[in-house]
Amino acid sequence: MIKTDILIIGAGPTGLFTVFEAGLLKLKCHIIDALPQPGGQLAELYPKKPIYDIPGFPEVLAGDLVDNLLEQGKQFEPGFTLGERAETIEKLEDGSFIVTTNKGTQHHASVVAIAGGLGSFEPRKPILENLGHFEENGVDYFVKNPEQYRDKKVVIAGGGDSALDWSIFLADVASEVTLVHRRNEFRGALDSVEKVQELKQAGKINLITPAEVVGLQGEDKLEALLIEKDGETISKATDYFIPLFGLSPKLGPIGDWGLEIEKNAIKVDNSLDYQTNIPGIFAIGDVNTYPGKLKLILCGFHEATMMCQAAYNIINPGKKYVLKYTTVSGVDGFDGTKKQAPKPVVQAIV
Amino acid sequence: MIKTDILIIGAGPTGLFTVFEAGLLKLKCHIIDALPQPGGQLAELYPKKPIYDIPGFPEVLAGDLVDNLLEQGKQFEPGFTLGERAETIEKLEDGSFIVTTNKGTQHHASVVAIAGGLGSFEPRKPILENLGHFEENGVDYFVKNPEQYRDKKVVIAGGGDSALDWSIFLADVASEVTLVHRRNEFRGALDSVEKVQELKQAGKINLITPAEVVGLQGEDKLEALLIEKDGETISKATDYFIPLFGLSPKLGPIGDWGLEIEKNAIKVDNSLDYQTNIPGIFAIGDVNTYPGKLKLILCGFHEATMMCQAAYNIINPGKKYVLKYTTVSGVDGFDGTKKQAPKPVVQAIV
Repeated sequence: MIKTDILIIGAGPTGLFTVFEAGLLKLKCHIIDALPQPGGQLAELYPKKPIYDIPGFPEVLAGDLVDNLLEQGKQFEPGFTLGERAETIEKLEDGSFIVTTNKGTQHHASVVAIAGGLGSFEPRKPILENLGHFEENGVDYFVKNPEQYRDKKVVIAGGGDSALDWSIFLADVASEVTLVHRRNEFRGALDSVEKVQELKQAGKINLITPAEVVGLQGEDKLEALLIEKDGETISKATDYFIPLFGLSPKLGPIGDWGLEIEKNAIKVDNSLDYQTNIPGIFAIGDVNTYPGKLKLILCGFHEATMMCQAAYNIINPGKKYVLKYTTVSGVDGFDGTKKQAPKPVVQAIV
Repeated sequence: MIKTDILIIGAGPTGLFTVFEAGLLKLKCHIIDALPQPGGQLAELYPKKPIYDIPGFPEVLAGDLVDNLLEQGKQFEPGFTLGERAETIEKLEDGSFIVTTNKGTQHHASVVAIAGGLGSFEPRKPILENLGHFEENGVDYFVKNPEQYRDKKVVIAGGGDSALDWSIFLADVASEVTLVHRRNEFRGALDSVEKVQELKQAGKINLITPAEVVGLQGEDKLEALLIEKDGETISKATDYFIPLFGLSPKLGPIGDWGLEIEKNAIKVDNSLDYQTNIPGIFAIGDVNTYPGKLKLILCGFHEATMMCQAAYNIINPGKKYVLKYTTVSGVDGFDGTKKQAPKPVVQAIV
C-alpha cells in the first residue's frame, strides 16, 4: 500500500504543479496516471507544439513546460504510479481514502486531488475480430518500452504524427517495421513525413498504402495480420501490431465515484477551494467545472494552489498556516536541498 | 483624452499579463502606474531576487519575469501612463469611466481593472522642515531619469540596496556623489557593498557616516544640506538630495472611489469574475480580497484571465466568445504579427 498526503490523479501540468505547492506546505504527493509518462496531453499529444498563454512564457513548447514543472517539483520527491488507471475509491472511517488502480495497486491518502484533464486517454481501437484476445499478446496501443520491440517484426497502422514518429524510431530497433495507412497521404510534421520517405527508400520501413489491417491471426500470441490492399488480402507475419489511431479522452471510472458531474466534468466549489461534493476530494484543472470555468492551464495552476491550502487544513486540523513568500523564505526540499536568494550582507564601508 | 477598452491601474505582473489575455479577446489595454517603469514591486523592490513559485519556472529573477511579461503582451500594443497616480474616477451615463491622474492625464475606458498590488508605493520621507518646499526643486525620492543629474552635485541618503546602487550608477554621471548614512554598516548585496567601498577609495563617492541630513537650505531651489556628524553640523553644497529610505505601499486615492474595502484590500466576487461592488470595476492580484485569498502572482494571472472574459461581455454585449487555444489558433497581434506553430503537412509517401 502506497501512503501519501495528497493523492493526485493525473500527471498533467496541473497535477505536476500541485506537487510544488503542496511541498511548500510540507505535504507529500503521489501521482497516478494512465499514460506511461508524466505530462498528460502536453507530453502525449503535442510535446513539440508551442503554447503562448502560459504567463511569463511568450512561447514555450508543451514538452518543455512539462520538463520545467517536473524540475520545479523534483525536490518534493513525488511518487508516481504510471501506466495504471485509478479505478475505485473507498472512504475510510477516519475520512481518508484508498484508491485502487486497474492493476490492483493501492494508495492511501488523506486528500484526493483529481487533476484528470479531459479524462484518461483511451486509444481509438480498430474494429477487428479477436482484437481483445491479442491485447498485451502482440497488440499494443502505446509504445511504453521501445526495447520490447528490439529485433522483432512490428506493424504500425495510422497516418498521423504518432504513426510516423514511432515508425522512424523503431526502424532502428525492430528487425522489420511496416507502416500501413488507408491513404497514400500522411498528415504530420514536414520533417517526419520526409524522414519516413527517406527510410522507405532506404528499405528500412516497409510502406503498405492505401491499405487496411482487416484481421489478426495467431493462437495465444499474435502471429500474422491480414492486410487488404487494392481489393486483395495478404497475410503478413509479425510479432507486434501497434494501431496508432489517436486517443479519445474519457472520464472513465472516476465518473462512478459518486461525484457531481456536469457535461463530463466534475462540479466544484470555486468560491473557496475547488472541493467536490465529497469532502476531501478536490477536482482541479480541465476536469472540473464551475460558473465561468475556462479550461486553461494557468487556471489549473491557481486551482491547485488554492486546493493545497484546503488540503493543509484537512491534514493539519487546527493548525494555522502563514503564507511565506519563496522570494523571502526560499524553498526547503524534502530531499534536503534549499533554494534561496543570497542574503544581503551587513558590512561597514570605511 | 486617452481611450482604451480596459484601463489597468498598476503595471505589476498581474496588470502586465492582463494585456495579453485581453489581447486574445481583441481588447485594447492602457496601464497607469505611479512608478516610473513597469513591473511594480518586482522591478522596483527586488528585480535581482529569484522567485521560485511561478508555475513552469523552477527559478526566475523578478526582473526577468517582468521582461518576459512585457514581451508576451507586446504584440497587443498596450499604452502606458507611468510616473502618475490614478487619482479620481467618474462613471459616465453609458457605464464607461474617466480616470484622471495626479498630473491631470485623463483616460476613458469601458472597463477598469485595478491591479494595484499592495497599493501605490509612497517613498518613506525623512522628517525635515521645508522638505515639501524643495520637492521637485532639488529633492527627489525616485531616480526617474539619471541624465537629469549629469554634471550636478548629488547627495544620496540611505543604507540599503537602492542607496548603494544609485550611488554606484550616478558616480559616473554626476560631478559629485555623496552618500550619507546614519551607520557605518550598509545592508545590501555583497557586490554592491564592495563596489561602493572601491569607489570610495578611488575618490568617486564621498562617504559621510555615521551621519544624518538634518536641514535643507536654499531659496526656490535646493542649494545645500546641513549634515550632522559626530555632534557637529556641516553645510554641504548640492544640487540634488535623494533620500532613499524605502517605499511603503498605500492604497491611496483608490480607497476613496466607493469600493468595498476590507483590511486595505478591495472586496471582489471571486465566485465569478473578480468584479468589485461597482459594476465595470474589477480588482485583480494582491489588491483584492475574498475568502481564502492568497497574495500570489500566479493567482493574479488567473484572476486577470477570468476578468478579461467578463470585460469582453461588457464591451461586446450579446456576443458570445468561444475560447480558442493558442496552441491551435496561434496569437494574432494588434501590430499585424501572427504567432503560430507550423501547420502539419498532408503529403503522399510513395
